[in-house]
Amino acid sequence: MNTQYEQLVTDMRSGDVPALSRMISMVENNTEAVPLIMKEICRYKSDSYCIGITGPPGAGKSTTVANITSILREKELSVGIICADPSSPFSGGAILGDRVRMQKHYLDEKVFIRSMSTRGSHGGLPGSTINVINLLRAFRKDYIIVETVGVGQTELDIMKSSDTTIVVLTPESGDSIQALKAGLMEVAEIFVVNKSDRPGADDMATLLKHMLHSKVSAGEWDIPVVQTNAHENNGTEVLIDSILRHRQWLENSGRLTEKRQRQRRQEFMMVLEARIRQEFLERINSNPALQTYLNKVECGDQDIYSATEEIVRNILRR
Amino acid sequence: MNTQYEQLVTDMRSGDVPALSRMISMVENNTEAVPLIMKEICRYKSDSYCIGITGPPGAGKSTTVANITSILREKELSVGIICADPSSPFSGGAILGDRVRMQKHYLDEKVFIRSMSTRGSHGGLPGSTINVINLLRAFRKDYIIVETVGVGQTELDIMKSSDTTIVVLTPESGDSIQALKAGLMEVAEIFVVNKSDRPGADDMATLLKHMLHSKVSAGEWDIPVVQTNAHENNGTEVLIDSILRHRQWLENSGRLTEKRQRQRRQEFMMVLEARIRQEFLERINSNPALQTYLNKVECGDQDIYSATEEIVRNILRR
Repeated sequence: MNTQYEQLVTDMRSGDVPALSRMISMVENNTEAVPLIMKEICRYKSDSYCIGITGPPGAGKSTTVANITSILREKELSVGIICADPSSPFSGGAILGDRVRMQKHYLDEKVFIRSMSTRGSHGGLPGSTINVINLLRAFRKDYIIVETVGVGQTELDIMKSSDTTIVVLTPESGDSIQALKAGLMEVAEIFVVNKSDRPGADDMATLLKHMLHSKVSAGEWDIPVVQTNAHENNGTEVLIDSILRHRQWLENSGRLTEKRQRQRRQEFMMVLEARIRQEFLERINSNPALQTYLNKVECGDQDIYSATEEIVRNILRR
Repeated sequence: MNTQYEQLVTDMRSGDVPALSRMISMVENNTEAVPLIMKEICRYKSDSYCIGITGPPGAGKSTTVANITSILREKELSVGIICADPSSPFSGGAILGDRVRMQKHYLDEKVFIRSMSTRGSHGGLPGSTINVINLLRAFRKDYIIVETVGVGQTELDIMKSSDTTIVVLTPESGDSIQALKAGLMEVAEIFVVNKSDRPGADDMATLLKHMLHSKVSAGEWDIPVVQTNAHENNGTEVLIDSILRHRQWLENSGRLTEKRQRQRRQEFMMVLEARIRQEFLERINSNPALQTYLNKVECGDQDIYSATEEIVRNILRR
């Protein structure tokens, strides 16, 4: 390993925040250093616990993150916050009032906050966010909180890398229907019905409990539905309690080990597939036969599916 | 080609709606028939024009689609609507009032409406939606309108398959910032500022125009900003006019041909990559060495990146 990165990792492990920040930037920009850094990081076992928070825009996810962080800090636990939601106040996207609420955490040296871009041409790399989670694990944060807006596969993939996934909903128009359709039901380990002072909050909580209870089998985790009012900081203690109960359940049942293995497998498949894709694109660019297929398909002289089959048969399996 | 699918395609080409619906279901479920059907479809040149409509939830996309459809129908043009937005009234996700507004189109036999699921385990396949666009092209619809919620790479990929992409925004909280961050600016060929009776609508339109004008160079398309009030059906004529001007510009400048070639190239790469991935996963499942890597990574005995490099070197390039 290049001694330059070795030094960076050593500095980061000893608590050097600028070293951590530099490595996160490398991960975000997907530089050639990423494999070297991650290879080095992998040597350290992690005691960090990762909480994922997702849900529709405007559900109160960031305020919930801020509230959870306050309680963890009261317990003298260190926290890393990764925000992959462009509309979050952590990313600077929301109204000023919310950002003010976060100020105390920004000024707390035991809280590290980083927002990740998931936009545009890079297609919202879940891989980058997951690498940053792993950097924060190596940085020995006690808790890591990842916030994503709950739409799209990228965001769901990121949630799979957290140990406890919380889905925040509100009693407002169509949230529950959207959550169901967006696949949020399948990732939730704790439901939060936020804005519990609004009409319909109790009904929504009851409905969720009913839907969830009909699915629980013995020995399985019984997904709790927590009602909160994040702006008033109501319900946060109950939420923290649910998180700790879930952690305990995972640890006692041996599921945490299984889950971490699944996470590594998922991360591996993601990195491997991206690498295979790159390898394949390089082959295409250097293979005149593939260029011919591309031209024929572009002009409509050959259909996409027969061209694909011919490429697999004649070039890939060659 | 299997005569069963040949017959289906022939029936569909002659205007048989049940045949079209059956083929769309096959595409949605990604059955083995898809390559056979798409291969057959590819033989027909398309005169359909595809309009993509995207933007944040609640911007008024569906109402805009309904208004555009009304005007196209007044011109006796046939319309196909594909809705890949779970919160759209076309998908049954929105409030009743909106759905009532769509009723007349549901009852019009020259309008074909289909909603596509982009949720969950299939990861929101842009490929399926694009195949359905191609089916509607083969069905000889004069206009095809595709609605997606403007978040995530999948939705942006779908937009690349439309000939004119419209981004619908509202003057409400943070829409414009979110649009910028979500990469919507890069796909927009027409901007709609909907809910133009609300405070801030004029300011927002002015801001957008200013941002867009600073970027236009000679011979390029000058992206219009259209103010509408979709619920009152205000501004729809101006919007249709902008669409027709864009179509004219694409046709006269030769860009439509280029764009369709780019679309086919993109679709090809998507299908090819999915096929390569499948081929690769099959190889993994049958290769004991790969299983060994997987186990080592799962248990934390090897890091993901060095395992990936070894696989590429020892197995893929073998």
